[in-house]
Amino acid sequence: MTTLVFGHKSPDTDSTGSPIIWAWYLNEVKGVPAKAMLLGEPNTEAAFVLKHWDLAKPEIIADVEPGAKVVIVDTNNPAELPASVNEASIEGIIDHHMLVGGLKTRAPIEITIRPLACTATIMHDLMGEDLARAPRGIKGAMLSCILSDTLEFRSPTTTTHDRAVAEKLATDLGVEISELAAAMFEAKSDVSAFSDAALLRMDSKEYTVAGKELRVSVLETTAPKVVLDRKESLMASMVDVAKEDGADQVLLFVVDILREEATLLVPNNLVKDLAEASFGVSVTGDTVVLPGVMSRKKQILPALKL
Amino acid sequence: MTTLVFGHKSPDTDSTGSPIIWAWYLNEVKGVPAKAMLLGEPNTEAAFVLKHWDLAKPEIIADVEPGAKVVIVDTNNPAELPASVNEASIEGIIDHHMLVGGLKTRAPIEITIRPLACTATIMHDLMGEDLARAPRGIKGAMLSCILSDTLEFRSPTTTTHDRAVAEKLATDLGVEISELAAAMFEAKSDVSAFSDAALLRMDSKEYTVAGKELRVSVLETTAPKVVLDRKESLMASMVDVAKEDGADQVLLFVVDILREEATLLVPNNLVKDLAEASFGVSVTGDTVVLPGVMSRKKQILPALKL
Repeated sequence: MTTLVFGHKSPDTDSTGSPIIWAWYLNEVKGVPAKAMLLGEPNTEAAFVLKHWDLAKPEIIADVEPGAKVVIVDTNNPAELPASVNEASIEGIIDHHMLVGGLKTRAPIEITIRPLACTATIMHDLMGEDLARAPRGIKGAMLSCILSDTLEFRSPTTTTHDRAVAEKLATDLGVEISELAAAMFEAKSDVSAFSDAALLRMDSKEYTVAGKELRVSVLETTAPKVVLDRKESLMASMVDVAKEDGADQVLLFVVDILREEATLLVPNNLVKDLAEASFGVSVTGDTVVLPGVMSRKKQILPALKL
Repeated sequence: MTTLVFGHKSPDTDSTGSPIIWAWYLNEVKGVPAKAMLLGEPNTEAAFVLKHWDLAKPEIIADVEPGAKVVIVDTNNPAELPASVNEASIEGIIDHHMLVGGLKTRAPIEITIRPLACTATIMHDLMGEDLARAPRGIKGAMLSCILSDTLEFRSPTTTTHDRAVAEKLATDLGVEISELAAAMFEAKSDVSAFSDAALLRMDSKEYTVAGKELRVSVLETTAPKVVLDRKESLMASMVDVAKEDGADQVLLFVVDILREEATLLVPNNLVKDLAEASFGVSVTGDTVVLPGVMSRKKQILPALKL
C-alpha cells in the first residue's frame, strides 16, 4: 500500500514542499512506496515554487480511507487534517508546531517535532547524508520551504540552524537566496485573484482566547497596500466567514515582509479591545500597525488576550 | 529553574533509568540544569539497577507545580503522569509508546517518539558522540534499561537496533549481558514483599475494550510459581483494585521470561470470554497459558477483544 504524505489543509510552501521531499526520501532511500498529497489548492507562492523547481503538483484529496497509511507533516492538529485521519494508520509525524493533542496511533510510530522554523529543516536533519542523493528539485524545495517559513530569515521563528541549512543548500544549488526569496514573495503577494473570503481563509488557524473562538489569519506580503485597499470588503466578509466556520471573530494580520510589521484590521470593539490588551497599542481607526510583528506562532498567538 | 525529568507513575527500570540518563545529558552536555524524578517507588528490578550502578535514587514527587519545566520520558499518556502535567511547561518528550493524544504544549518543543523497545535506546541515538563522555553509571543504566524492556532480547518488541546498542554498551563497559540480565530478572522476580493489590498495580496500563475499562497488568518473572501460588488471593484482590481504580476488570498476565510464555488468571466469565476471543485458546480452569506471549504492547493490547 502506498503511504500518503501530506501537510495541512491550507497548503503554503512548507506544507506543499515537505510532503514532496519526504515522499522522495521514503521512495528512493527507505524503499517505502510513498506519494505526496495536498489537502487543498496550494497558495500562489507554493504554486510558484512547484513551477520554479519543475515539480509536479500533488493530487488534492478531500479525505483519507480508513486504514490508509499516512505520514503527516507540518501540523499535528486534527482540525487541519482530513476528517478521517484518526481512522487511518498514521505511520509518522514530522512537525514544528506546538502539540495540540488530538492525534492517536495504534502502535508506536516515528514522531519528530522540533522547535525549528520549518518542517523541511527537520527533514534535512533526519535525512543526514542521504540528502546528497536528492535531485535538484528536492533540494530546491527544501530551500524554498525554509525561505518561506522564515520570511528570508526575518521571522523571529528563524533559528541559526534553519539559516545554516538554507545557506548550505543555496551554495550547493548555486542559487542566490535574495533573488529566489524575492520571486517567492512576489508570487505570494499576488492575491488579486482571490475573493475576500478566500483571503481570510488562506493562512488561518483556529485559536481560543478567553472563551472566544478566533480564526487568526495572516497574509504575508511585500505589497500590503493591495490588501489594505480592500479592507472594507474584507471586514464585511469577516462576519460571514466567522459564521460559516463556527468562529466568534476573524482576525486578519497583514504582515509586511520588507518593513517587518503587521497591520491588524479592526472591524469592531472586540478586536479593538483584543488588540489593545494583547499588543499594548492604542487603536483609533479601523487598522493598527504592530511594529516588528511577523510570526503568528512566536508573536501573535502567545500575546493574544482579552 | 531546574528542569524535572520523569517517566510514568509505576517506575520500572526504563522509567527510573531514563530520567537519570537524560538529566545527566541536559546538565553535563546541554548546560541545562536538570534533575531526575520518580512518580512512585521503583520496582525491585529498578531498585537493584540503581544500587548495581551506584546511582542515587531520585526523589519521588506526587505532582508538579504550574509552570514547572518538565521533560517526560517513557510515556505520553496523561493518565500515567502527574495530575497537573498540562499546567507545567513541557519542554520535551522522549518515548516509545503509541500516541494517546492528551498532552498539550504552549509552544513547539522537542518530541521524539520511535518504535524501539526502550526509551534509553532513543536517548543513545539523540546523544550521539556525547555519550562517550558519560560516566559508567549512565552507560550502565542505559544497558540495564534495554535489557529490562527487551527481556534480554526475548521480547518481540526488540529491534536489531536495541540489541546492537546494548551489545556495544556491554562491550564498552566490560559487562557480561547474560549475568547482568539474570541478576536483574532475579531482582524483578522477588515480589514476596508486595501485597496482592500492589502486585496488580505494579506494571499496569488502563485500556478500553468494547466499552470495558480494563487494567492490563503484567508481571515479568523468572519464578512464575511464586506468583501463581498466590492466585486465589490475587483474584480476590482484583475486585477491590478494579473498584478503587474505576475499572471494570483487572487482567493479570504472569510472563515467564525464561519459558517465553504468559499465564493469564481467569477469575470469571468476562476474562474467560476475553481470553478465548483474543488469543484463540480454550479456557477450562482459572488460568490459561499463552505460549510465546511476552509483550503487552506488541501482543496483548493489539489482541484484546470481546
